[in-house]
Amino acid sequence: MQLQVVDESESNTHPNLMLTKEGVAKIKASLGKVPLFDKVLADAITEIDAEIAIGIDVPIPKDMAGGYTHQRHKKNWFVMQKAGVLYQVTGDKKYAVYIRDMLLEYANMYPTLPIHPTDRSYATGKIFWQCLNDANWLVYVSQAYDCIYDFCTAEERAKLEKNLFRPYADFLSTGNPRFFNRIHNHSTWGNAAVGMIGLVMDDQELVDRALYGLDINKNKKNERDNDGGLIRPEEQKKAGFLAQLDGSFSPDGYFTEGPYYLRYAIFPFLQFSKSLANNKPELGIFEYRDKILEKAVYSLLYQTDANGLFYPINDSQKGMSWKAREVITAVDLAYYHYGNDPMLLSVAQKQGTVALDEAGFAVAKGLADGLAKPMKQKSIAYTDGPDGTEGGIGILRTSTASDNELCVVMKYSAQGMGHGHFDKLSYSLYDETGEIMQDYGAARWVNIDQKGGGRYLKENKTWAKQSIAHNTIVIDETSHYNGDIRIGEKHHPELYYFHGKGDVQVVSAKSENAYTDSNLHRTMVLVKDKNFRHPVLIDVFKATSENKHQYDLPVWFQGQLLLTNFDYEKEATNLTTLGDAHGYQHLWKEAVGKAKGDNAHINWFSNGKFYSMTSVASAEDELIFARLGANDREYNLRHDPAFIIRKKDSKDATFVSVIEPHGAYSWTTELAEDPFTSIEKVNILYDDANYTTIQFSNKAGKEWMLFLAHQNASAEAIHEVDIDGVVYEWIGPYQLK
Amino acid sequence: MQLQVVDESESNTHPNLMLTKEGVAKIKASLGKVPLFDKVLADAITEIDAEIAIGIDVPIPKDMAGGYTHQRHKKNWFVMQKAGVLYQVTGDKKYAVYIRDMLLEYANMYPTLPIHPTDRSYATGKIFWQCLNDANWLVYVSQAYDCIYDFCTAEERAKLEKNLFRPYADFLSTGNPRFFNRIHNHSTWGNAAVGMIGLVMDDQELVDRALYGLDINKNKKNERDNDGGLIRPEEQKKAGFLAQLDGSFSPDGYFTEGPYYLRYAIFPFLQFSKSLANNKPELGIFEYRDKILEKAVYSLLYQTDANGLFYPINDSQKGMSWKAREVITAVDLAYYHYGNDPMLLSVAQKQGTVALDEAGFAVAKGLADGLAKPMKQKSIAYTDGPDGTEGGIGILRTSTASDNELCVVMKYSAQGMGHGHFDKLSYSLYDETGEIMQDYGAARWVNIDQKGGGRYLKENKTWAKQSIAHNTIVIDETSHYNGDIRIGEKHHPELYYFHGKGDVQVVSAKSENAYTDSNLHRTMVLVKDKNFRHPVLIDVFKATSENKHQYDLPVWFQGQLLLTNFDYEKEATNLTTLGDAHGYQHLWKEAVGKAKGDNAHINWFSNGKFYSMTSVASAEDELIFARLGANDREYNLRHDPAFIIRKKDSKDATFVSVIEPHGAYSWTTELAEDPFTSIEKVNILYDDANYTTIQFSNKAGKEWMLFLAHQNASAEAIHEVDIDGVVYEWIGPYQLK
Repeated sequence: MQLQVVDESESNTHPNLMLTKEGVAKIKASLGKVPLFDKVLADAITEIDAEIAIGIDVPIPKDMAGGYTHQRHKKNWFVMQKAGVLYQVTGDKKYAVYIRDMLLEYANMYPTLPIHPTDRSYATGKIFWQCLNDANWLVYVSQAYDCIYDFCTAEERAKLEKNLFRPYADFLSTGNPRFFNRIHNHSTWGNAAVGMIGLVMDDQELVDRALYGLDINKNKKNERDNDGGLIRPEEQKKAGFLAQLDGSFSPDGYFTEGPYYLRYAIFPFLQFSKSLANNKPELGIFEYRDKILEKAVYSLLYQTDANGLFYPINDSQKGMSWKAREVITAVDLAYYHYGNDPMLLSVAQKQGTVALDEAGFAVAKGLADGLAKPMKQKSIAYTDGPDGTEGGIGILRTSTASDNELCVVMKYSAQGMGHGHFDKLSYSLYDETGEIMQDYGAARWVNIDQKGGGRYLKENKTWAKQSIAHNTIVIDETSHYNGDIRIGEKHHPELYYFHGKGDVQVVSAKSENAYTDSNLHRTMVLVKDKNFRHPVLIDVFKATSENKHQYDLPVWFQGQLLLTNFDYEKEATNLTTLGDAHGYQHLWKEAVGKAKGDNAHINWFSNGKFYSMTSVASAEDELIFARLGANDREYNLRHDPAFIIRKKDSKDATFVSVIEPHGAYSWTTELAEDPFTSIEKVNILYDDANYTTIQFSNKAGKEWMLFLAHQNASAEAIHEVDIDGVVYEWIGPYQLK
Repeated sequence: MQLQVVDESESNTHPNLMLTKEGVAKIKASLGKVPLFDKVLADAITEIDAEIAIGIDVPIPKDMAGGYTHQRHKKNWFVMQKAGVLYQVTGDKKYAVYIRDMLLEYANMYPTLPIHPTDRSYATGKIFWQCLNDANWLVYVSQAYDCIYDFCTAEERAKLEKNLFRPYADFLSTGNPRFFNRIHNHSTWGNAAVGMIGLVMDDQELVDRALYGLDINKNKKNERDNDGGLIRPEEQKKAGFLAQLDGSFSPDGYFTEGPYYLRYAIFPFLQFSKSLANNKPELGIFEYRDKILEKAVYSLLYQTDANGLFYPINDSQKGMSWKAREVITAVDLAYYHYGNDPMLLSVAQKQGTVALDEAGFAVAKGLADGLAKPMKQKSIAYTDGPDGTEGGIGILRTSTASDNELCVVMKYSAQGMGHGHFDKLSYSLYDETGEIMQDYGAARWVNIDQKGGGRYLKENKTWAKQSIAHNTIVIDETSHYNGDIRIGEKHHPELYYFHGKGDVQVVSAKSENAYTDSNLHRTMVLVKDKNFRHPVLIDVFKATSENKHQYDLPVWFQGQLLLTNFDYEKEATNLTTLGDAHGYQHLWKEAVGKAKGDNAHINWFSNGKFYSMTSVASAEDELIFARLGANDREYNLRHDPAFIIRKKDSKDATFVSVIEPHGAYSWTTELAEDPFTSIEKVNILYDDANYTTIQFSNKAGKEWMLFLAHQNASAEAIHEVDIDGVVYEWIGPYQLK
């Protein structure tokens, strides 16, 4: 017996997942010398001591997310993981006893535990309503077990492994191939969970299962998950963690579901990778696929507004930010394993905390040594798809002298699996105060039990995914790809060109498949010019079709409408809906107006700032103010405003707008600075299949012309247009002068 | 000539309004030693040097508030005042030259300047659309002139005084008795302006005019201003600054228009008083009326939420706070003249700045010396009316261990002149995140030109002043006092009792005049109890009448409805208004439900926190969800939600609710703590004209009983009720057990 124990400790040192013996020794030697780490440790001790005082609770699972048993088991995983670290760092056995006793309770319960009674998931768990959460639990708890492995007796380990960990890992893998074998964030958690407990138990079979998946043929074709996502796409050839690394990211680190889900998925990617680096350095996991994990961490950090909030594209809950625990771990591990980038320290500074491990320790030390440099979020175009060939997103950002940022995110990515929205060529706009033109995000209150148990609400499909919920063209009140994921996942728009440097930045992309008989082409130009106090955004959106259609272009401006340059009739006593389907049934039709002259101008106020949009409009266009909230019998939706320019009965439609943040207001001084736009006029001077020329002017009489070439993105190509007998020539796909 | 100059400087030293020669010397001697003051000075130099570089602009007046000429002249007053201080402190003559040259431009313009072309005010100004703003200008500019008085030649002074200051002061006083002779914030500014320039010019006639007003008979009776306020109430016997001090405040420093306007009025009160203290110490102005100005400053600071934002009662723009420039000056002067209260330093700390004068210097020095102590906003009942006999407001506040504050403000004050709202016995509720139950404030966008020139909007009368816009009972869809200021200003509710200490705090007040045939009596009990994570508020609102009525009690809960314990029918495709008049025409009727059982429960989410209200309700009550925004053709209103309990066809109505903040949510951890109320049930056990007994319980089974006596507020009186054969006895007007 004793011999066996010695053998184990020789072959399989503990801890060796997120912590190592050497790392723990280094931390112990520096206690009291690295203030942020000391503070995080002290906070953890306070928290876990309070939990120990309350006592262990391992209830029989029954609730959905948000309900008691869900929340308790979730808390248990966090508490056990932290207690494990505390045992290692402080040496205080009470933490080990607490974990061991709680694990033994789980081990008593697990063997006879049926499938979770809720039965609402394509892969129902045992502890939770979905296998995903069971996997979350094991990713954390395998770390706790690793920390007390040597503390437990061989008998205790045998009981835990036989009654709890091995069957738990089998349930998540061989017991649920639909869950385990996907290229999807769910399966990443599953792979990591099985692999990490395998490493702790030195169970090579589990580790291999995690790395290489189950036989792919265990998964039926054409099955779909609860979000409508395909469980096994035609092209999938491999499964397992390495296949996730190959298939989840584009070559530059973009995650097809978007940053909200990348934030969620990056955690098991990094935790299992760190565990593999400690146990199987020969795999070189942090170097894998040209350091794909480093790219993924940076793509996470770049897909945020000035305050570190993730762009809520696709299914995302707003408010998620750099401060999420997953990003804290990601920043720390990227700092530790990818060259101590001092910019990451400034992110850690904003996070105000670090992970309780050697990576977190290194970051706290870097901060204490004053090494931090400001994080520079840059303009960047990300490709989508494993090969980078399925569209992408383009981020343009620029700042003025006063440090105010304007940032536009244009989305021309692939469908994004079950969490994708039908918003091809949509955009959202941000400044230092947050959203100017919003993406609605998901119709979901994550973990808030009152709202559908914290899961996606039915309005996520009927509203949030629909095209009209986004800042993009909707034809004939029908969403892109007819709102059908099976069509959407076959197509993607294409980037036409991207230029992300200097005072004139441009992103331009085309979609030929969002509608069967129409092509869409949008070009967004972010301009910094000394004649404007803040940067301005020019939006040129061309739709061309073989047939006549109705074209709607909504902007989901955030805030209070102050002024228009056109008259509108606002419904005073009776509100009806704007339409019947594809999201229109959720919109109240508040007001309709007609442009006077050639421009429609709206001016609004939000977060202490004044904004304006000046759009080319004709007297035939309908100018609609809508508000969300119709057909919302359970108060699931926000009551946000939208402005829609509607062009009816047209074969083609070209929408041109200039959006300008121009002033500010203080509630304590009650002074309004520059409450009105400085834009005087916007015109389309020329517009055909090959070229569009825009002219705009400011109130001081200065004029600009924007030339766009639509059929050749070459930087060297020479173009010319003849406007009223004057020939203008330029080089490359755009020119502003 | 030279002799004359020497005489002047002997009899009338400069500067001597807000600055003195001694004060300036003290400041100069300490430059570089008091960091905050140095910073404020450096910022002022940067700002004023930039203005000097831009050059002087004294445009011919033409615009409303928010327009260019208004904003420019307003900026000129601030800039001149600051430049004056800079000249005194730095000795740099460029500041004096700048002021002198700008004043000479005003002196060139003023003699031929007609009345302002807008003609929208009961007292139209010359530089601005109303005399009020002309007076603002002179309060600041008299300080600038004081600072450069000795710098100017006698000829320059003669020209400025003959062409600008004396006619300017005459225009504000003898030229506009309707403006000058009121007991009102407008006239306080007028008095201060005339008095301050009088002190600079050593013009005793002007100083006396300021102190004692014009002959009161110059004002006609029954005239009203633009807000509907009486210009000369029957009882007014005196005018002028001393009469303002007598008549504007209750004996404990409450200002009848509310804190937003107190914040505005306190500035001329303190500036002129400081000037008088320097020039006429024999008046003892800071001691006047038992130190009424000290009480006024503290009442300003106590009428704020945990973040220092003023309660937006009556006509108030939300967002105004401790950080307003007027409050900065008020805090500094109160610190300097009223015993160096270290709590005021912590307010100055939050303000982050000080006034550029000897009071500001003293505060900056106190901060540098580390003397600040936390500001403790306390529970307090303020009386209203010059004699303290016209109702008042009651503020209850309590905090939990986690430093979360719950603060209820109950309003039983007098009408508040033209800026008063028809909301007798209304309340608003705040915690550390801000508003839980809101007061709408004013329908106005101050100085935002797009919205009615920044003035009060018509919706201020049709909506914001109406009773239904507030958290109070509305009978038969008719506002209190029939929404008629002429009735309202004759009446006021009465405080029944106030107890602002300990774990059970109570405010109770009655209104017999809001409706001709009905009496209202509301009792609000703020309870801190270890069984609740946060304090809870119990609201008992009794209406009794000789006749049958419809009683509506709205709560303007802020945030997103999550859950109810009753079914409701929400309008899906067609919204209509809730009523036709008294504000109801602005409400969309979103949903109507009926209680199941005896309680109506709503649960909502705001600012990351969960709140619930559990109300006694019968199956006959209508439970209405309404939303603001109907009959709002110009987008002047916010789209806020309300919940209304409606009792129909009843002689009496007793509304009982328990309001509980109970949980929190984090968008980055996505964890919901205590999302559900801990209240199980609320009952009325006994209710008649003399007594009401409430019982409520929590989900853990603990029960509380609240006994209220309605006819005797004596703390010694013994009461008893017989409930189902059990006799309960208690002492005093309330007991919770």
